[in-house]
Amino acid sequence: MTSKLSHVRIVGAGLIGTSIALALKSAGIHISLADSDPRAQSLARDILGDSKVGDSNEDVLEVEDLCIIATPPEALTQVIKAEIQRNPELRVMDVSSIKTKPLLDVSKSALSTSRFAPTHPMAGREVSGPESARGDLFTGRPWVLVREGVDQDLLAHAEEVIAICGGVLMSRSALDHDRAVAQVSHLPQIVASLLARTLESADRSDLELAGAGLRDTTRLADSDPVLWGQIIASNADAIRPLLISLQNDLVSLLEGLDESEFAQAFIAGGGQGRARIPGKHGGQPREYFNVTIVIEDKPGQLAAIIESCAQIEVNIEDLLIEHTPGQDTGLITLSFLPSDGPTVMAHLHHEGWKVHPSR
Amino acid sequence: MTSKLSHVRIVGAGLIGTSIALALKSAGIHISLADSDPRAQSLARDILGDSKVGDSNEDVLEVEDLCIIATPPEALTQVIKAEIQRNPELRVMDVSSIKTKPLLDVSKSALSTSRFAPTHPMAGREVSGPESARGDLFTGRPWVLVREGVDQDLLAHAEEVIAICGGVLMSRSALDHDRAVAQVSHLPQIVASLLARTLESADRSDLELAGAGLRDTTRLADSDPVLWGQIIASNADAIRPLLISLQNDLVSLLEGLDESEFAQAFIAGGGQGRARIPGKHGGQPREYFNVTIVIEDKPGQLAAIIESCAQIEVNIEDLLIEHTPGQDTGLITLSFLPSDGPTVMAHLHHEGWKVHPSR
Repeated sequence: MTSKLSHVRIVGAGLIGTSIALALKSAGIHISLADSDPRAQSLARDILGDSKVGDSNEDVLEVEDLCIIATPPEALTQVIKAEIQRNPELRVMDVSSIKTKPLLDVSKSALSTSRFAPTHPMAGREVSGPESARGDLFTGRPWVLVREGVDQDLLAHAEEVIAICGGVLMSRSALDHDRAVAQVSHLPQIVASLLARTLESADRSDLELAGAGLRDTTRLADSDPVLWGQIIASNADAIRPLLISLQNDLVSLLEGLDESEFAQAFIAGGGQGRARIPGKHGGQPREYFNVTIVIEDKPGQLAAIIESCAQIEVNIEDLLIEHTPGQDTGLITLSFLPSDGPTVMAHLHHEGWKVHPSR
Repeated sequence: MTSKLSHVRIVGAGLIGTSIALALKSAGIHISLADSDPRAQSLARDILGDSKVGDSNEDVLEVEDLCIIATPPEALTQVIKAEIQRNPELRVMDVSSIKTKPLLDVSKSALSTSRFAPTHPMAGREVSGPESARGDLFTGRPWVLVREGVDQDLLAHAEEVIAICGGVLMSRSALDHDRAVAQVSHLPQIVASLLARTLESADRSDLELAGAGLRDTTRLADSDPVLWGQIIASNADAIRPLLISLQNDLVSLLEGLDESEFAQAFIAGGGQGRARIPGKHGGQPREYFNVTIVIEDKPGQLAAIIESCAQIEVNIEDLLIEHTPGQDTGLITLSFLPSDGPTVMAHLHHEGWKVHPSR
């Protein structure tokens, strides 16, 4: 029987490392957190409220059950080299966005691959650094674990970390993982960046007509270039066939661009592809009943609407606020379970709100 | 002096036509709304609460000041042909997503181009049909008007429609408009569809790892294929150079894909392009102070938080709810003006909320 985790060392105090640290600390596990960047190190120390974070003189006196490496992927070999000198019994769990490349790196290192558990929490934000960390970043999100060749004690520890963080454990081979993330994560990143790059040479007056479509489709383009440069290069073999397929599709489109039937079939194919994406957290897509309310854009209006909903004890599943600067009105769209919809509509209308159903 | 609008005929009871009808009707203008599709016609009639909608026997007795054509772009010539027989004094305002092609179509029709005001409200939704219409769909949104060669009375009527709908009038030439929307609207649509099309052949198990990035970047792929087929084909000349530029960028990326420095510069360029997009409604980008609160996922929690904010009279600029099914907690992110941030943080903390700053 594997012992429970009591001391975990985390190398890399970025978004992911600090978020794991927050979750493990809440579960009563002793954490030491180290980062080569003094700013990140000191910020993470404040966030964790723990003066021992990164104090390597003290750390060296304790032996951790598990070392989680949460640095950018290219630093992995170097970190392992340093860590194995600190602790010859080193067992490592990584959390990087690719899985075949780190396995290859480890196979050339002094660490046995049986002491390396490749994992990947499918959670992230366009923002980075310890200041963006959240103890619940991983709650309900897929967390991939590559089991092949990993020793049982280390597997048990990795599973414990994933469970404490609230992740949804998904076992994949390293190759299957890398093919999957090339499709669902790396390709969207590249496509968003490709689109955003065209804006560099656009006229300022043209950009004045930009709406939500352009903003949403380019959101990922704000991601960290250093991290993403490494991710893309490391997973180039899995990304390349997807980009070539996209390139071929683009060539066909350019040929048929001025035929509306061709363009129509092109757009329809995108809708069919998108329909294959599972819902918000890997489950089935959820259908909500949406209600749009026109309000005066001033403090207190939102509170009053929410209070109206609380009166009839319905749960607001989602909420969207849209302002119209220069206007005195705003729009609030509330989402409810379909069964609550008609009741809410009737109640809000009765309470005097300018309420409209929406899809 | 141009007389005020009293009777407007709208052809096309889709999202845009019905939304304009709702706004004009609220302003006391008499509307007749016609659609070749009986389902849309009947639904629009119910939505407007007006039994005269589409009753062409009655309509023919009245002469409208203005006819707004809100059909898919390819129907324009045919609609003009029919309408000019009803009313030889016909003055038309269109609302389609392209402007050079309709002008060309009209120049070949029986209608003088001086009696045709090309306009484009920059508002839309992935959903369509009269059931998605909102009288405030255009509030605060750019609404392009092409003035060249249009007679003064018609210009005044078009401006009155835009003002009543709450649109932000922007004058552009037809060519400038089409180049701008190719960049800010048509290219994002095509890129989202290109990405979504790759999902058709993806493994189901790979898609289980999909997150918000894939969903946001492909959101536009759900758009109406018939409408978008026509838009893309009609604006092919403005879209083509952008697609070729994107294609060249893709070829370069494929060559440098496994070099992390190259990939890093690629991603960085996307961030620089995206930074050029103006804020939510064409103004400067707004910076908010964001506060994240961990709550129990049950009715009343949101109301209590909003009430806490109302106590100190700060305005909530934006709000994001994230559920974690299978967990008892949810996350709420509130956005405030930067000047309100510290006060709100201190107050919510004092009120006992689990509050975290976020970027």
